[in-house]
Amino acid sequence: MALEYLKLDESNSIRISAEDLHKQVSAILQGVGTPQDHAEITAKILVSASLRGVDTHGVGNAVRYSVSIEDGTYTIPQTVEVISETETTALLSCGNGLGFVAAHQGMEMSIAKAREFGLGMATIRDGHHIGMVGYYPMMATQNDMIGMAMTNANQAVRPALGARPRVGTNPIAFGAPSGDERDFILDMATSTVASGKIGLARRLGVEIPEGWAVTGEGEPVTDPPADRGDHWSQNPLGGSREQGSHKGYGLGVMVDILCGVLSGGGVGTQLAGGENMSWTMAIDIARFRDVDDFKSMMDDMIRELHETPPLPGEKAVLVAGDPEADFEDDRSANGVPVENGQYDEMRLRAADLGVEVFI
Amino acid sequence: MALEYLKLDESNSIRISAEDLHKQVSAILQGVGTPQDHAEITAKILVSASLRGVDTHGVGNAVRYSVSIEDGTYTIPQTVEVISETETTALLSCGNGLGFVAAHQGMEMSIAKAREFGLGMATIRDGHHIGMVGYYPMMATQNDMIGMAMTNANQAVRPALGARPRVGTNPIAFGAPSGDERDFILDMATSTVASGKIGLARRLGVEIPEGWAVTGEGEPVTDPPADRGDHWSQNPLGGSREQGSHKGYGLGVMVDILCGVLSGGGVGTQLAGGENMSWTMAIDIARFRDVDDFKSMMDDMIRELHETPPLPGEKAVLVAGDPEADFEDDRSANGVPVENGQYDEMRLRAADLGVEVFI
Repeated sequence: MALEYLKLDESNSIRISAEDLHKQVSAILQGVGTPQDHAEITAKILVSASLRGVDTHGVGNAVRYSVSIEDGTYTIPQTVEVISETETTALLSCGNGLGFVAAHQGMEMSIAKAREFGLGMATIRDGHHIGMVGYYPMMATQNDMIGMAMTNANQAVRPALGARPRVGTNPIAFGAPSGDERDFILDMATSTVASGKIGLARRLGVEIPEGWAVTGEGEPVTDPPADRGDHWSQNPLGGSREQGSHKGYGLGVMVDILCGVLSGGGVGTQLAGGENMSWTMAIDIARFRDVDDFKSMMDDMIRELHETPPLPGEKAVLVAGDPEADFEDDRSANGVPVENGQYDEMRLRAADLGVEVFI
Repeated sequence: MALEYLKLDESNSIRISAEDLHKQVSAILQGVGTPQDHAEITAKILVSASLRGVDTHGVGNAVRYSVSIEDGTYTIPQTVEVISETETTALLSCGNGLGFVAAHQGMEMSIAKAREFGLGMATIRDGHHIGMVGYYPMMATQNDMIGMAMTNANQAVRPALGARPRVGTNPIAFGAPSGDERDFILDMATSTVASGKIGLARRLGVEIPEGWAVTGEGEPVTDPPADRGDHWSQNPLGGSREQGSHKGYGLGVMVDILCGVLSGGGVGTQLAGGENMSWTMAIDIARFRDVDDFKSMMDDMIRELHETPPLPGEKAVLVAGDPEADFEDDRSANGVPVENGQYDEMRLRAADLGVEVFI
């Protein structure tokens, strides 16, 4: 639910089909030595983010990942190792490779375990960025399951009452399938806003609202900072003590526990930038009740929420996943708008790597 | 983390031992026909809330429950029915009785299933109030497990952008065991504040801060309203669109899905006041990694968080569960302060029911 002024400027971008973008991303990743199956998984998730309007996590990142592979930050080809596994649980190592590949495997294992035993869970260490976290619960909803995924990151958010960053923006994603209505897909940073929105404001040269970030003295930061460090922090969801900042902070630490402590991979204060531990879960709805009855009740709930009168000045009440589904409807039909700069960068990178230019 | 002015006034209360309070609550519940084992479970959870400083969910509520039992709102004695069960999952009916009893059984089953298969989950329909939701994860942490619990309620919170209440305050609780440090116990409403804090402000005759509640026109409510209804709503955590109200709203609906849709018991718009569906989960840490290693990493993380420099004017950075553990240390040693009015009410109720007066 980006603010108006943070939306992508269509006049400065070009529409490209999801199919061509998929081919281009996969080709670039393969161009730096990523095995085809791993490149295809990563491309699928990046294109899904672009289709769903989550541009900060979309195809534009492929070049950055390819550089991390080339400079050895990522180990490619990677081996996703199953360190321990039981009926319902798995501890994976991402092998210091593409986070997407291990998180995708974690959710596939979670779903397979849930199909056999009702529930499945994976926690993943030695990992990197897994992209749009909401992708992984969607893998579960497509299998008539409830899905959850989380991922942690290095310190960016202050604890409630604290003056220094200690917790990552640590997003939580949750999905549940509906019948006639759209699936419920929640994907939220546990900070007031995702870091990407602050970076985007900086690129666009606009101020950020009070409440998103503070200095070490607790003064509001409205000029988006250029660098990370101890001199400023993002606020946890809730913002101030009076408005519940201990809740966003507590949720952020919960994410650190499930991703970083349960896996042993590390928490916000222990991770370098670009290191991310992750967690997935699947719940087989049919173990509890008839799936059609579940979906029908989801439909009723979603319709009631949509019918809520909006506040003065607002158009309509939305349900988690609505804005992304609207983007997906448009972009599947009309192509994904890619900023001119990112478009040039991807083409140039493909040419440099000697792989086919598809866009 | 109540605001200063909402704290219990010790000059207006009397300290009573947890043991005597337990006996009194159990006696009152048995006085209206609750079987002894169910009365003991309920008393244990209510006294735990009082010990931990969560007075809105403490022993003072015993009289209210006894009235709900007497007037037939609760069905007592209740039968907690296992409607469906698999290796890792259970769907329970609370039998329209005390919510505490079914939620306690749900977490006990979750723990037993997690011990056998790694994970366990229960969702509970036909229920009532389960008290301090943070109690149930503590049952898991005492068994070297991670625990979660949620409960939904009738509509009190507006959707983001919405002008009418549609979602309950729907709390989420999460607990993970530590070693030398205190366990991490998060217990949070998905609204800006729990409803109890607004009710308490009304009893104390103080205003509530802007950001907690709004009228149907979106104007701040600062005079705590006397009645529920469509004319005002609590705000979801995040408060405003710009500060992430869609996140608190989304989390509230997630709670409705796990408690109300997965169980079939109903969501916020379908429930009457006092109806609550619930959900519990346990995760056996040993299935993933060595429990001592897990706890040692928890300790390190908690110490690092505690060592964060506080914002100017704040004393120290806390971790979820700290304020409650401080209360528990004091009240276990020195007794639980019970407001004079609640003290008189409990004694009178016991006498009226012809059961022993312990306090």
